[in-house]
Amino acid sequence: MRYKVITISREFGSGGRTVGKQLAEKLGIPCYDREIIEKVAEESGYDKQYIEETGEYTKGGILNTIFQSRSYGYSPSNEDIIWKIQAELIRKLAREGPCVIVGRCADYILRDDPEVLRVFIHASMEFRAKRIVEEYGEREDSPQKRLRDKDKQRTAYYDYYTDMRFGDGRNYHLCLDSGELGIDKCVDILAGVVK
Amino acid sequence: MRYKVITISREFGSGGRTVGKQLAEKLGIPCYDREIIEKVAEESGYDKQYIEETGEYTKGGILNTIFQSRSYGYSPSNEDIIWKIQAELIRKLAREGPCVIVGRCADYILRDDPEVLRVFIHASMEFRAKRIVEEYGEREDSPQKRLRDKDKQRTAYYDYYTDMRFGDGRNYHLCLDSGELGIDKCVDILAGVVK
Repeated sequence: MRYKVITISREFGSGGRTVGKQLAEKLGIPCYDREIIEKVAEESGYDKQYIEETGEYTKGGILNTIFQSRSYGYSPSNEDIIWKIQAELIRKLAREGPCVIVGRCADYILRDDPEVLRVFIHASMEFRAKRIVEEYGEREDSPQKRLRDKDKQRTAYYDYYTDMRFGDGRNYHLCLDSGELGIDKCVDILAGVVK
Repeated sequence: MRYKVITISREFGSGGRTVGKQLAEKLGIPCYDREIIEKVAEESGYDKQYIEETGEYTKGGILNTIFQSRSYGYSPSNEDIIWKIQAELIRKLAREGPCVIVGRCADYILRDDPEVLRVFIHASMEFRAKRIVEEYGEREDSPQKRLRDKDKQRTAYYDYYTDMRFGDGRNYHLCLDSGELGIDKCVDILAGVVK
C-alpha cells in the first residue's frame, strides 16, 4: 500500500464513517472511530458520552478554555486534557500499522507524516438531512437545525485546536461529495488511490 | 456520459489546466480555457491580455468597483462588463454540448445545473513553485511571492463575484491534490466519475 494511514474527516450526516468502514474492509485493515472514544475513556476516566461530545464538538467549552487561560493563567480545561490523550492515542495507532481513522482531527495530528492520506467527505444539506433522520430518527429540532448546530460545533472545535480551517479543500488530498458521487464510488476512488 | 460539463477550478501552478486538457482528450470532448479569453475579446473589444488579467484576477479593480458603486451610484466597471460577457459565453458553451471548462468561475456560473461536475485542483506551495518555474521561467520575484500574489488576486475575484469562498471543499464534487496524487491519477479519477 502506498499509504499507511487514511484519515477521514467528514461533515455530520455525510456518511463519512460508512466510507471509512467500507474502505477499511476493502483494504483488510482496521477502522478506528468509536474505538477511540472507548480508549480515551479508559485512559482519562471521563464518561464515554462526555468524550464523544467534547472530543470533537464544543458547546461553549472552547470559550471557557480561552476565558480560563486568559484570566487566571493557564490551567488545562477538560477539552484540553481529552485533546491531549486523543492526540497521543492517534499517533500510537498510526505507528502500530495500516489503518483508517475517522474524525477527531487525525488529519491535523498526523499532518507531517508523508504516509498519511487525508480525506474529507461532505454532502449537501438535503442529502445529510435525509440521512440523519434515517440513521438517528426524528427529534424535536428539525434535521436542518440539528445539522447547522453540529456543523457549527465541529467547525469551532477544529478551528480552535488546529491552525487550519475546517472544510478547506486545500487541507486534504481528496475531498469527495458523497451525496453526488455515492458512498460506493467514494470507497472505490479511495481504494484506487491507496492501492 | 453522466455529466454534460466538467468545470475545473484550480490554484495557480497546480496543473489544473493540464488535468482539464487531458480529461477532455480522454473523453473526446472540447476543453475551453484560453478560447474563452479570445471569444470575450472578440465580443467586448478589450485586449486579450487585459481580459486574461481582469477576467479572473484583480489588482485593486474590485476595490474600484465597490468604491465607484457606493460613491456615485452604480455604473459597471470594466471588470463587471467582462464578467457579464464571460458568464453568458460560459452558459452558451454549456448549452452547446459536452465540454470541460477551466477556471473563470464556471463552477459558480453553472451551479444550478445538475449535469455539471464541479472539480477543484490544488497542490502544495513547493509543488506549484517548482512547476511555475518550469512552465513560465524565472522572474524577478521568487516563485513563492508570485504564487502568493496570484492566490490573493484569484481569491479576491472569486469571493467578490460569487457568494462562495474560493477553495472551500464543500463547493465542489471533487477536490484533488495534483501534487500528491499526480496529474495522470487526477485525470483517471475524473474520467471514472464522468463515464
